[in-house]
Amino acid sequence: MKLTPEQIDRFHTEGYLFFPGLFTPEEVAELNAAVPELYSRQEAYNVREKGSQAVRTNFAAHMVSPPFARLARHPRMIEPVMQLFDEELYMHQFKINGKMAFEGDVWQWHQDYGTWKNDDLMPTERAMNVAIFLDDVNEFNGPLMFIPGSHRKGVIDAKHDLTTTSYPLWTVDNDLITQLVERAGGKNGGIVSPKGPAGSMILFHSCLVHASTSNLSPWNRVSVYLSLCAVSNHIRRFKRPEYIAHRDFTPIECLPDDCLLERSPVNLPWKGGLPASALQTSLEEIRTSKETA
Amino acid sequence: MKLTPEQIDRFHTEGYLFFPGLFTPEEVAELNAAVPELYSRQEAYNVREKGSQAVRTNFAAHMVSPPFARLARHPRMIEPVMQLFDEELYMHQFKINGKMAFEGDVWQWHQDYGTWKNDDLMPTERAMNVAIFLDDVNEFNGPLMFIPGSHRKGVIDAKHDLTTTSYPLWTVDNDLITQLVERAGGKNGGIVSPKGPAGSMILFHSCLVHASTSNLSPWNRVSVYLSLCAVSNHIRRFKRPEYIAHRDFTPIECLPDDCLLERSPVNLPWKGGLPASALQTSLEEIRTSKETA
Repeated sequence: MKLTPEQIDRFHTEGYLFFPGLFTPEEVAELNAAVPELYSRQEAYNVREKGSQAVRTNFAAHMVSPPFARLARHPRMIEPVMQLFDEELYMHQFKINGKMAFEGDVWQWHQDYGTWKNDDLMPTERAMNVAIFLDDVNEFNGPLMFIPGSHRKGVIDAKHDLTTTSYPLWTVDNDLITQLVERAGGKNGGIVSPKGPAGSMILFHSCLVHASTSNLSPWNRVSVYLSLCAVSNHIRRFKRPEYIAHRDFTPIECLPDDCLLERSPVNLPWKGGLPASALQTSLEEIRTSKETA
Repeated sequence: MKLTPEQIDRFHTEGYLFFPGLFTPEEVAELNAAVPELYSRQEAYNVREKGSQAVRTNFAAHMVSPPFARLARHPRMIEPVMQLFDEELYMHQFKINGKMAFEGDVWQWHQDYGTWKNDDLMPTERAMNVAIFLDDVNEFNGPLMFIPGSHRKGVIDAKHDLTTTSYPLWTVDNDLITQLVERAGGKNGGIVSPKGPAGSMILFHSCLVHASTSNLSPWNRVSVYLSLCAVSNHIRRFKRPEYIAHRDFTPIECLPDDCLLERSPVNLPWKGGLPASALQTSLEEIRTSKETA
């Protein structure tokens, strides 16, 4: 899958690209079938909603679950991002975000790169956010909202929100959100929220400001939400556990396009359980091989 | 303003009617100009968001503010509701709901008549909800969501939610919401949320199940939210303060259609302050004049 010059331009201007129905219903069914068992595990990588057993976020499914390990190497996702960065990629973070029916809570306005920079010492913004819908997304089940072009503001000073969400988040100031929305067109396009069937994919810049509201509808809005980092841009600190911020910088090798339905063989390093090392963290800055040499 | 037979049919089937842009920008400006002063009053009738000074709900503005007193007697609102009930009306409740930018919180799924029945002993559902937008309403600023046809379920058993919202609310069970949404068309129209410019009006049945999500956008979504009760259906208990559930059952007399811009004279009983009697409550059931005679 190759992006057109028009798509590449649009990505640089708007900060995101939307591919409705990129994965087929049969491919999505392969993924969805693996979710309940993942959610049922009482493991550190299942983060639950405040005061509830509902899973808000599952981390690192690509390390334990065959269909998600295939998705993590899927050419329909990997190739466009390699094309945009002109470099090989590794998997920095892999989440299944369960914005569940009636329960799913708010995510305040934020940039993802803020966290990667502040916590993980990722050197630059050369990492891509990817959202893949495992459920249909409509205006009622808490879709992702973007401020188009807000990535061009670069890294924004943020405050660490530890209270309103169940997961610590570097959130952006309301006055700045107002300005960014105004610059992007105000009520005419200043906020967008791509909607579409399960299997749709969004690529969005790691500095694109985004949020999502609560899900009061009877429809789950589960999605895979991952970040692909240019290999040269790998993180320099392991302050967060490995299931949140990965430490294997080996370039991803794509599987064939039909890998989900053909069930291509995949390696599952954490299949037998989360290793103790994945929970170890450190505040030390690591040196790159070039620096060490 | 007369409803067509088609509109009347639709109201009975769907439980609501939407009138985009019913009031002009100039008329809305008259109303909006009066809001900041109302909100600034430290009175019982200004209910604020949890942990914030932002007003979530102002009650009884029609008793103290000339433009809102005119709106409460406006023929474009009163006449269609009289036509639907074929009876004169009194004002049961009058609110300005401030679903403020960045701050506005969730209202869970509920029916309004549940409260009027349980708290106020309103005999039947012959009372109409009216929402009039004081701001533009779009998909991002927490619009009202309805389940079309859900009013035909009648009064639904509800549980008293005292925790998730700042205002006690009789909310509806999630399983029943799922069924009602499915019956109304599921993902094809099972939930609707009318959107439009400031000045738009929604009439909706007092048993129509509705909710609204949080407002993460930079746009306020303030609206007048009132209920007009058929005079014969007046409440039978004053368990709630008078500024919430009114006790004057005199039929509303319409002002001229141009009353907002012409600033027609209006009576403002609470202009000098909320009378002590408006805070007095009672658990006794009142007898109607017919019963007394």
